Amino acid sequence: MFVHNKKLQYTVRVAEPNPVLASFMLEQFGGPQGELAAAMRYFTQGLAEDDAGRKDMLMDIATEELSHLEIIGSIVAMLNKGVKGALSEKAMSEAELYRSLSAGCSSHTEALLYGGGPSLTNSSGVPWTAAYIDSIGDPACDLRSNIAAESRAKIVYERLINVTDDTGIKDALGFLMTREIAHQKSFEKALYSIEPNFPPGKLPGMEPFADMYVNTSQGEGDVEGPWNSGPQWNRLDDIEGAIPLDGGDGLATVKLSATEKTAVAALAKRTKSNTKSDPLTGADLGAGPGAGKTTPVE
Amino acid sequence: MFVHNKKLQYTVRVAEPNPVLASFMLEQFGGPQGELAAAMRYFTQGLAEDDAGRKDMLMDIATEELSHLEIIGSIVAMLNKGVKGALSEKAMSEAELYRSLSAGCSSHTEALLYGGGPSLTNSSGVPWTAAYIDSIGDPACDLRSNIAAESRAKIVYERLINVTDDTGIKDALGFLMTREIAHQKSFEKALYSIEPNFPPGKLPGMEPFADMYVNTSQGEGDVEGPWNSGPQWNRLDDIEGAIPLDGGDGLATVKLSATEKTAVAALAKRTKSNTKSDPLTGADLGAGPGAGKTTPVE
Amino acid sequence: MFVHNKKLQYTVRVAEPNPVLASFMLEQFGGPQGELAAAMRYFTQGLAEDDAGRKDMLMDIATEELSHLEIIGSIVAMLNKGVKGALSEKAMSEAELYRSLSAGCSSHTEALLYGGGPSLTNSSGVPWTAAYIDSIGDPACDLRSNIAAESRAKIVYERLINVTDDTGIKDALGFLMTREIAHQKSFEKALYSIEPNFPPGKLPGMEPFADMYVNTSQGEGDVEGPWNSGPQWNRLDDIEGAIPLDGGDGLATVKLSATEKTAVAALAKRTKSNTKSDPLTGADLGAGPGAGKTTPVE
Amino acid sequence: MFVHNKKLQYTVRVAEPNPVLASFMLEQFGGPQGELAAAMRYFTQGLAEDDAGRKDMLMDIATEELSHLEIIGSIVAMLNKGVKGALSEKAMSEAELYRSLSAGCSSHTEALLYGGGPSLTNSSGVPWTAAYIDSIGDPACDLRSNIAAESRAKIVYERLINVTDDTGIKDALGFLMTREIAHQKSFEKALYSIEPNFPPGKLPGMEPFADMYVNTSQGEGDVEGPWNSGPQWNRLDDIEGAIPLDGGDGLATVKLSATEKTAVAALAKRTKSNTKSDPLTGADLGAGPGAGKTTPVE
Amino acid sequence: MFVHNKKLQYTVRVAEPNPVLASFMLEQFGGPQGELAAAMRYFTQGLAEDDAGRKDMLMDIATEELSHLEIIGSIVAMLNKGVKGALSEKAMSEAELYRSLSAGCSSHTEALLYGGGPSLTNSSGVPWTAAYIDSIGDPACDLRSNIAAESRAKIVYERLINVTDDTGIKDALGFLMTREIAHQKSFEKALYSIEPNFPPGKLPGMEPFADMYVNTSQGEGDVEGPWNSGPQWNRLDDIEGAIPLDGGDGLATVKLSATEKTAVAALAKRTKSNTKSDPLTGADLGAGPGAGKTTPVE
Amino acid sequence: MFVHNKKLQYTVRVAEPNPVLASFMLEQFGGPQGELAAAMRYFTQGLAEDDAGRKDMLMDIATEELSHLEIIGSIVAMLNKGVKGALSEKAMSEAELYRSLSAGCSSHTEALLYGGGPSLTNSSGVPWTAAYIDSIGDPACDLRSNIAAESRAKIVYERLINVTDDTGIKDALGFLMTREIAHQKSFEKALYSIEPNFPPGKLPGMEPFADMYVNTSQGEGDVEGPWNSGPQWNRLDDIEGAIPLDGGDGLATVKLSATEKTAVAALAKRTKSNTKSDPLTGADLGAGPGAGKTTPVE
Repeated sequence: MFVHNKKLQYTVRVAEPNPVLASFMLEQFGGPQGELAAAMRYFTQGLAEDDAGRKDMLMDIATEELSHLEIIGSIVAMLNKGVKGALSEKAMSEAELYRSLSAGCSSHTEALLYGGGPSLTNSSGVPWTAAYIDSIGDPACDLRSNIAAESRAKIVYERLINVTDDTGIKDALGFLMTREIAHQKSFEKALYSIEPNFPPGKLPGMEPFADMYVNTSQGEGDVEGPWNSGPQWNRLDDIEGAIPLDGGDGLATVKLSATEKTAVAALAKRTKSNTKSDPLTGADLGAGPGAGKTTPVE
Repeated sequence: MFVHNKKLQYTVRVAEPNPVLASFMLEQFGGPQGELAAAMRYFTQGLAEDDAGRKDMLMDIATEELSHLEIIGSIVAMLNKGVKGALSEKAMSEAELYRSLSAGCSSHTEALLYGGGPSLTNSSGVPWTAAYIDSIGDPACDLRSNIAAESRAKIVYERLINVTDDTGIKDALGFLMTREIAHQKSFEKALYSIEPNFPPGKLPGMEPFADMYVNTSQGEGDVEGPWNSGPQWNRLDDIEGAIPLDGGDGLATVKLSATEKTAVAALAKRTKSNTKSDPLTGADLGAGPGAGKTTPVE
Repeated sequence: MFVHNKKLQYTVRVAEPNPVLASFMLEQFGGPQGELAAAMRYFTQGLAEDDAGRKDMLMDIATEELSHLEIIGSIVAMLNKGVKGALSEKAMSEAELYRSLSAGCSSHTEALLYGGGPSLTNSSGVPWTAAYIDSIGDPACDLRSNIAAESRAKIVYERLINVTDDTGIKDALGFLMTREIAHQKSFEKALYSIEPNFPPGKLPGMEPFADMYVNTSQGEGDVEGPWNSGPQWNRLDDIEGAIPLDGGDGLATVKLSATEKTAVAALAKRTKSNTKSDPLTGADLGAGPGAGKTTPVE
Repeated sequence: MFVHNKKLQYTVRVAEPNPVLASFMLEQFGGPQGELAAAMRYFTQGLAEDDAGRKDMLMDIATEELSHLEIIGSIVAMLNKGVKGALSEKAMSEAELYRSLSAGCSSHTEALLYGGGPSLTNSSGVPWTAAYIDSIGDPACDLRSNIAAESRAKIVYERLINVTDDTGIKDALGFLMTREIAHQKSFEKALYSIEPNFPPGKLPGMEPFADMYVNTSQGEGDVEGPWNSGPQWNRLDDIEGAIPLDGGDGLATVKLSATEKTAVAALAKRTKSNTKSDPLTGADLGAGPGAGKTTPVE
Repeated sequence: MFVHNKKLQYTVRVAEPNPVLASFMLEQFGGPQGELAAAMRYFTQGLAEDDAGRKDMLMDIATEELSHLEIIGSIVAMLNKGVKGALSEKAMSEAELYRSLSAGCSSHTEALLYGGGPSLTNSSGVPWTAAYIDSIGDPACDLRSNIAAESRAKIVYERLINVTDDTGIKDALGFLMTREIAHQKSFEKALYSIEPNFPPGKLPGMEPFADMYVNTSQGEGDVEGPWNSGPQWNRLDDIEGAIPLDGGDGLATVKLSATEKTAVAALAKRTKSNTKSDPLTGADLGAGPGAGKTTPVE
Repeated sequence: MFVHNKKLQYTVRVAEPNPVLASFMLEQFGGPQGELAAAMRYFTQGLAEDDAGRKDMLMDIATEELSHLEIIGSIVAMLNKGVKGALSEKAMSEAELYRSLSAGCSSHTEALLYGGGPSLTNSSGVPWTAAYIDSIGDPACDLRSNIAAESRAKIVYERLINVTDDTGIKDALGFLMTREIAHQKSFEKALYSIEPNFPPGKLPGMEPFADMYVNTSQGEGDVEGPWNSGPQWNRLDDIEGAIPLDGGDGLATVKLSATEKTAVAALAKRTKSNTKSDPLTGADLGAGPGAGKTTPVE
C-alpha cells in the first residue's frame, strides 16, 4: 500500500512564473521519458515479479519515481501559477491575456484546457499513453529496458538543465537527473546478477544466423567496426547472390483447401488488371486540354 | 536509396490458412516489439547520426528489419488468404462466415476492416504508433534502447514459436528470432566502443545522490542485493527522518508579482472551501429515504 | 513524497488462474474508469490546488487509488500466473499453448506481448491514455468530474462482481467498489462546501439563453419533464422560425483585407465547380458497359 | 433522422482573420471539452436509452451540440480564411508566408496540413479521440458525467472569452457558454428525477468501508473538513497499524495446479537473481577509468 | 443548424440480441470507414468551403451520414439490449454472465465498459480518432478522398452483409451500402466539374520526373502494365547507375556557422565510436560460460 | 528483400540550420500525408496482393516512398544539426538556448525529446499512427485511396515549397512533389485497367436508393449541380414526408426472449425518471442565494 508524506523529496524553489518554461518541463511529467512512464514501467513489472529481490527493488524505485513525478509536477504548477490566476480571474485585458497565452510552445493549451494545472502531456501537448511502457514480463529484457529508460531520462533532464537559468529549478532538476544515474546502476546490478542473461529466454538461435552480419546498406560510407567485423562475426556482403538465406525459392506460399482455391481464383478473376490495355483514367479526364506538359496525355 | 528484390530474405512456407494464428503474428508486424518499430527506430537514428560507423550499422540493420517486416507480413497474408477469398467472394453461407470470423482474437477485424491484408496493428488490433519509438538522439542512450528492444523482440518471437506447430512458420520465426540476437550483439559492440558511455551525456550527477539507494518500499519482503547494498551504495532507510533530501522545507514555492498575487488571492477567495460547514450534497439528495445503511445521511 | 508498505490495503485471494478473467479485470487497471485514471485525475488536481483542505483531500484519495491500482494489478498477476509460467518455460505442447492463448478476449495479447504481467490497457487491449483525464483546473468543475468518475467506477466494479464467481476476487472487488462510494461522498461534500458553485466560473450567462430549452428533436416521442418544462424553463419548439437566435442573418462572415480578398477570389475562381456541366466521371468510366442498372450512366 | 438548415443557430461575425486565435478556438471544436465530444456523449447515450423522457432530452441536446460544433467551426474557418487563400494561391513571398505560418501555437499545422479548414484537433493539434467520451450506459452515472462535462465546457468558453477582444466572436462564445449552463441544468433535473440515484447501481457497499476516510497523505497540511470529518465519517489515521483492512495477511495469492507450479518454479530458477554476488555490469564497463567520482566503481 | 426527427431514415428490425454481431457492426459506427468518419470528413470540408455548390453538397451528405450513424448505432443498441439488461440487473448467475461476456470479439468490453451502449470504437474496441479524417482543404484532393472513402465504406458494408443472416439487419445494411454508392457518384460529379483537376494545386511538376517510372523492386515478377509502360512513361530500370537523379553527390549537407561547427565537432569527438577496438560488452558478460555456441565470445 | 544504397535518390543541399522550418518539414516525414504513411499504405497492400502486375507496382512505389522518407528525414536532420550540437554540448548560455528552443512550432520538443533527430511526428509533434493507413484489401478501393493520398501529398509539398526560400530545399521538395504526380498517374492506370471497377465489390445496390439524392440541408444556399440533378439522379426534397424511406415505422426494434424482457423491464423500472416531479438539484443547491438572475431557482 502507498502512503504519502506532504513534504516533497526535494524542495522546489521557483524564481518566477513562466508558462513557456512550464511546457518544457512537461516533457518529464507526461512525456515518454518522464516520471509517470518510469513509475508505471517499474510498478507493472513489480506486480508480476516473483523474485523477491527484484520485486523489492522494482517497488522501491517505482515509488521513488512517483515522488519525482510530484516534484516535476510541482515545478510546473509553480511556473503556471501566475497565468492560472490571471486567466481565471481575468486580471488583465483580453489583449494582454492573448499575448500571454500566445507566448509559445503548448503553453496556450496548458492555460485554456488545463487551467494551469500540470497535464499528463509532453512538451507539445501530446497526451501520455501506455504505449510508452515497454515491459514484457521477462526480467532479462525488462531490466535492459529499464537501463535504457534511465539513461534516456538522464539526458532529457540534462537538456532541461541546459535551457534553464532559474537556480532553484536547476537544483531540483539536478537532483532528479542524478537519481536516474543511481537507478540505472541498480538495474545494471540486477541484470548481471542473473546468469546467464544473454540471449534472453530459453530458445537458442539458429546457428548460421546468430553470428552473421548482413551488410544491407552499401556504397561509399561502408565502415568496418566491432559490430560487423572480428572473431564474433561472419559478414555477408553479396546479398543478391545469397538470398533467400535458407536456400529455398524466396517466396511466400500457403496450401489452400479446394474451396479456398476456388474462392481465391474467383477473386483473382474478378479483380484482374488488364496489363495490355492503356485505359483512359480519371487523371486523364481531369488533366484537361490546358494541362501542363509535365503530365501529357498522348 | 532503398531498392527491393522480389525474393524474401527467408522463404515462407505456411501449411494452411488460420486467421487466429495470423492475428498472433501481427504482434511482430504492427506491435510495439515488432519489425516496423525496429526498422523505424534504427532508421530515424541513422538519419541523424554523424559518426560514420554507427550510421552505416544503423542503416544496415534498419534495412534488414524492413526485410523482416516483409517476411512476417507475408506469413500473415498467407494465413489470411483463405478468409480473404471466402469473404470477398461470399464463398460460404452467412452462418459459416459468421462462425469463421468469430473464431477469436482480432481476426474478425482483420477480415472485416482490412480484408485479410496484414494490418499495422498488434495482436489485439491496436494501431501502430510512433509512441513506440524511443530514440532521443544520444548514442549512449539510443544504443541501450536498441539493445533492450532487440532482447524484447527475441522473446516475443520465442513466445510465438512456442504456440505454433506449423513447421514452416516455426522455421521462419526461428530465423527472425536469431537475427534479433545478432543485432543485439552489434548494438552492444557499438555501445562499448564509445568510451566512457556511463553516465551518458556531459553533466555529472550531484555527489551525495548518485550512490544513494532510497528504500521507499518497506515491510516484510525487504531484500538486500547488489542493487542496493555493497561498496557502491549508501542506503537510506529512514525516509521520514530524511526528507527533504536537500534539508529545505520540502515545499514548492514561487515568487509572484504583485499583480499575480492579487489574482491568485482573488481566485482563492472565490473558490474557498468552507471546512466548517457540513453541506447538504447531491449525493445526500440522491440517496433518498430508502437508501441502504452503508451510506447513511445522519 | 510517497512511500510504500509491502502489505496490500486489502488481501487478494484468487482461487485459480484464468487469463480471460484477467483480461476483464484490466478494465479497472488500465481502462478509462480504472484506478490509474482515478489516481492521476486527483493527483494532477492536487498538485495545482492552493486550497489547503481540497489539496489534502485530493492527495489522500489519489494515494489510496494508487493502492487500489496495486490491488487490481495483483489480481491480474495472480490470474495470469499459470499462463506466464507455461508460456515462458514452454511447459505444454504448441497445440495446448495455442488453445490456451486463443481462449478469448485480449488474453492472447496479455500473454504474447506482456508475458502475463498486468498491462496498462483496458479489457480489449487499448493502451491507457491521459485523454481519459478530464481535470481542467477549476474546483467547481473538477469536483463534479470526480463525482461522476467515482460513480462510473462503482458501476464497472459492480459489473465485474456480477461476472465473477471466485469468492476471493469478489471480496476484493467489493472492497474497491465500496471505496468508490466513499470517495464520491467526499467529493460531494467538497463541492458543496464551495458557495456558490453554480454556474462555475465568474462570467454569468446571457440572459435569454440560460433558461431556454431548444426542442431540436421532434416527432412522436417528444416528452415533457422537469428538464424542459416548469418554472425554470422557456421552451423553444418553433426552431425554424426562430433561428438564428440573435436575430441576425445566421451567416458566418469575416472582414478580409484587400490582399486577402484577392487571394480568396483567385482560389475561388481556380477551383470553381461548373454546376451547368454533366461531366463524364471516373465512376462513369469504371462502371463499364456491364454495370448493373442500379448505377446507370445514361 | 437529422436534417440541416443552412442558417447557423447564432450569427458569426468575425472582425478579421487571425490563425493563432483560430488555433485557440479549436479547443472547443476538436478538444476534449469541445462540442464534438458533447454531441457524441449525448448521442451515444440517447441511442441506448429506453426511458422515453431521457432519450428525448439526450437527442435534443446532442442535436443542439452539433449545431454548436457548426458555430465554433465557422469561427475557425473565418479566422483562417486569409491564410487559406494566401497559402493556396501563394499570394505572398516565401518569407512572408513563413513568418505568417510561424506565428505560434499550432497555426502552422492548421495551414500546412489542414489547409485552413477547421480540424478535429485541440489547440495543440492533438486529434480528437473517442477516449474523451465517458458514457458507460448507466443513467445515474452518465447524467453525472454530463453535468460535469457541461461545467467544464462552460469554463473553457469563459477562458476563450477572456482572451478575445473581437466583439463578434465574444458574442457568439457568450451564447455557446450560456447554453452549457442551460444544458447542465437539464441534466441535473434529469438526474434528480431518478430516485434513489446514490449510490448508482444495485449493489450496496460493504458496511465498514463506505463511511471510512483513509488519511493516506499525512504531515503538515492535514486538514479537517466535511469530506473527512463529521457524522458521516469514520476516519482512519493509523494506516500502518490497520492494513490490510480485511485483517488478512495483505498478500496476493493464487492456487496453482501441479503443472503450473512446476512451470513457475522452473521460471523462478532460470531467472533467479543472485543477491550474494556483486557482478561487474555494463555500467561498470561503460564508466571507464576517467569516469567522475559520483559513479565510482570500487 | 441541425434538427432531428425521431423517425430513423430507415427502419431497423433486429431478430434477436447478439453481442458478438454487435461488435462486428461497430466497424461502421466508430471504425475508420464508418459513419462518424464520413460525417466528420464532409462536415469539416463543408465548413471551410466557399464554393456554393460544393458547400451545399457537403452539408447534404454530412447530414445524411449522421442519420446513418443513427441507424447503425440503433442496430448495435438492439443487438446489445439483452446483455445490457442481464448484466445491469444481474438476471443470470455469475457463470452464465461470464460465458455470455466471453463469447468473443470485443463484446466483453462493450458490456463491462460501455454497458451495452454503442461505443465509438471499431470492432476490436479501438476508440475512434480524428486521425481517420484526411481532409486537407483542397477540393481536388478532398473530393478524391471522399470518392475513395465511399468506395471503402461500400465494401465494409458488403462484408457485414455477407456475415449476417438476420434479414432485418441485412435490409438496413443494404440500404446503407447503397447510399455509399450514390454518394460516391455525387463526389465524382463534383470532382470532374472542376477543370482542370489534375494535378491538383497550382505548381506544375518538374519535367523529367513527372513521367518517370522508377522500377525499384526487381527480380522474378517484374510486370509491364499501363502504370509503367506506354506513351505516358519513361521507365528507369538501372537505378544504381542513375542515382541521385539530380546528378549531384547524393549526400545531405548543410552549411553550419562557426559556432555550430565547433559544437558539432565537440559532440562528434565526445561520442566517437572506436572502430578499431573489440570491446567486452554487456552481452559478453551476460552470455556466461555456459552460453550456447550460437553466440560465442571468442 | 530490401537493400540500401548510401546515396540519396536526390541530393539534399540545405542552406543553414532552422529548427522551426524543420518542424514544418516533419509534416511529410511523420505526418498523415507524409512518406511513411505512403510507404506503409502501398507495402501492406502489396504483401496481400495476388495480381502480379499490381503487386509489382505496389512494391516499386512503396520502395520509392521509403527513399523519399529518407530524403525528407535528411532535410530535417540538416535543419536541426545546429541545435543538436548546441544543446548536447551546451555551446550557449541557458538564456540563449532557451530563446533558441522557444522559437516556435514544435521545435522545442524536437530538441528536448528527440535531440534534433527526425521524429515520426507531424509538424505539431503528434506521433505517427497506423490509423492514417486506409488500406482495406480491395483493389478497386485501395487504388482509389492511393490516388487520393498522392493528390494530398502533392498539395502538402506545394504548401511547403511556398513557405521556404532555401533553394536547395525547394529543389528537393519539388522533386518529391513531382513524384507524387507520377505515382498518382500509375495508380489511376491500375484502377482503370480493372473492368468494371464501379461500384466496387460484388453486391449491387438496392435499386431505388442508388440514384437518389437526399437534400438534407435546405434553406438559402441550395444549389443544383451535376451531383444532385440531371439524368442520373432522383432528388428527394420533402424529407419529412418521406421518412423512413422503407415505408416502415422508422423505429429500431428487437425481439427479446422472456428472460431478457424481464431484465429489461426491471432495469427500466429501477432507473425510471419521474417526469411529473420538479426535483431540487445539485445545481439548485449550488446556485446559492446570491446566484445571478440568469439561473434563477424559482
